[in-house]
Amino acid sequence: MDKIAIIGMGLIGGSIGLALNRANRGTLEVVGFDTEPKAAKRAVKLGAVSKATRHLNEAVGGANMVIIATPVLAIRETLEAIAGMLSPGCVVTDTGSTKEAIMTWAEEYLPKEVSFVGGHPMAGKETSGIDAADADLFKDARYVVIPGRTASQEAIEAVLNLVQLLGARNFFLDAFEHDSYVAAVSHLPIVLSAALVTAAAKSPSWREISKLASTGFRDATRLASGDPIMNLDICLTNRDGILYWIDETVRELLEYKKQIAAATTESGDEEAIDKLADTFANSWEIRERWLAHYESGRDDDGDSSRPETPGAGDLMGEMLMGRAIRDRYKKMSSLFERQQEDPRRRRLRRS
Amino acid sequence: MDKIAIIGMGLIGGSIGLALNRANRGTLEVVGFDTEPKAAKRAVKLGAVSKATRHLNEAVGGANMVIIATPVLAIRETLEAIAGMLSPGCVVTDTGSTKEAIMTWAEEYLPKEVSFVGGHPMAGKETSGIDAADADLFKDARYVVIPGRTASQEAIEAVLNLVQLLGARNFFLDAFEHDSYVAAVSHLPIVLSAALVTAAAKSPSWREISKLASTGFRDATRLASGDPIMNLDICLTNRDGILYWIDETVRELLEYKKQIAAATTESGDEEAIDKLADTFANSWEIRERWLAHYESGRDDDGDSSRPETPGAGDLMGEMLMGRAIRDRYKKMSSLFERQQEDPRRRRLRRS
Repeated sequence: MDKIAIIGMGLIGGSIGLALNRANRGTLEVVGFDTEPKAAKRAVKLGAVSKATRHLNEAVGGANMVIIATPVLAIRETLEAIAGMLSPGCVVTDTGSTKEAIMTWAEEYLPKEVSFVGGHPMAGKETSGIDAADADLFKDARYVVIPGRTASQEAIEAVLNLVQLLGARNFFLDAFEHDSYVAAVSHLPIVLSAALVTAAAKSPSWREISKLASTGFRDATRLASGDPIMNLDICLTNRDGILYWIDETVRELLEYKKQIAAATTESGDEEAIDKLADTFANSWEIRERWLAHYESGRDDDGDSSRPETPGAGDLMGEMLMGRAIRDRYKKMSSLFERQQEDPRRRRLRRS
Repeated sequence: MDKIAIIGMGLIGGSIGLALNRANRGTLEVVGFDTEPKAAKRAVKLGAVSKATRHLNEAVGGANMVIIATPVLAIRETLEAIAGMLSPGCVVTDTGSTKEAIMTWAEEYLPKEVSFVGGHPMAGKETSGIDAADADLFKDARYVVIPGRTASQEAIEAVLNLVQLLGARNFFLDAFEHDSYVAAVSHLPIVLSAALVTAAAKSPSWREISKLASTGFRDATRLASGDPIMNLDICLTNRDGILYWIDETVRELLEYKKQIAAATTESGDEEAIDKLADTFANSWEIRERWLAHYESGRDDDGDSSRPETPGAGDLMGEMLMGRAIRDRYKKMSSLFERQQEDPRRRRLRRS
């Protein structure tokens, strides 16, 4: 019987367990470990693991595969702790959000007889913890796979099989690329969400302000409700990427500020208004384009240069995009045409 | 038979129409107008209005109430256009996202014989347009009500009745307060979402980066998919509030940057790491607290001072918060205790 150990019975570890359990034909033993015994017990009850143990060596001893699904800094501790407990040929993988540090630690701590293959499923939820676990969490999600320098071909294939079993799509990247890319689209949004919350709450009027906060605020700040320890660990291990992207965002915000100020002078600068309109339209279009590809689960392997402003894009839309975004495109084009055609609207802007 | 005119058959106007229609006992005629005839036709088909017209005077003539649910600058045009078409005693209201400018325009354009009562329902959706309309859109949402200086008591009551019919909760504010408050929690998030999208897309690696974007990016950028014209109008009419909050956010982001940099020096500064942990924990807690009140639909009228760090808050949690947030509180406290108690974790941070 094959044995898989999952270290960390949170949202990610629990969801992997549930998916393994669903696919299990009685040939697999899945053992769970968590420093919090309650979480491990709960994982057994929910069917995420066949059994739980409070002893790391009982979890990983004799395991064919060890999946480490803890916050990033705890991955380091785990690698160090299990190094002497693993059977030769064991495949060790993880689900951490930053990869350069983890790949280095794996190389440093693990013996030559085991293979390390880093992993990062690009999926999440507002709620963390074992109770939020879901066998379908990874369905159609990207799953970054980064083989260690000495990983065997069999080990890589075992992790690819896991990715497939989870219903995810594997994506090979090197650790440096991974960390820079996720800094932009995963880690920066965490910092932005958290900063939006604390900036607003610093206002003396926060008590009243908070009563007006609604769906927009809720969604823009969702990531601020992520596990603070995970967010901390991400910042501690992806320093350069995050600092770079904070600077880029500040630069962009000041550009928006400049554009808004220019568009709202007393005299009214029509060119500046058009520029600001283009900025929002451009952002709208990039986001819709991304969303259409994200939701379809298909790659955007067409022309990835920055799109034209709406209206010009009809043909490009036909060629490169799915029906959903083409329809939204058309709707937005008509909005812009209305605006262009309505002389009163232009006049009002000027007054 | 009473007659209500809705100008603007988008998400908001359509949703109001659907709610009116649902409550209608055959004593109400609801007429819809939109500059885009297709939207108006669709509104009739969906049952949001009894009939549509392409002529403003046909829509508002003889109406007891006119609801203007267009982007902000189009509200100005509409007020100017309908001023001479209204019956004495007519109640005019709107759903615009900025209120100082709108209150001024209403006073400027509307005759003394009609009452203007500004309104702003704090509800929204990612998708705009009549097809996204939903009779329950405003259920439990705040609905800001700002009576014009000369509005009659009856007119105010009529709008409060509308708010009640929509299932929303009225909230009296003056226009200046409204605009400053929503700048923080509605308008700033729009600018942040849009800037996050355009900043990321400016990277030469955006094509690869975008493949790693997932739920976090999706939620943090949801507002960038709002109608660009609405976003533009908001910026053009709430300049001061938005510029102020961009500055506050930039300041906060640079503070996060400073804290992250200090926590990730080669030598490892434990105090700086703790400070960064506290920052994320503080943001987490403020957001959870807000969310618990938002979701419960109850006011946060307890102590609104900045919360203590988790762990100390158990009693306060018992007294002031609902069960859901108390449970989350406890979970987070135990996470923090684990972190504090684990000497290896501390050591690893330092190394």
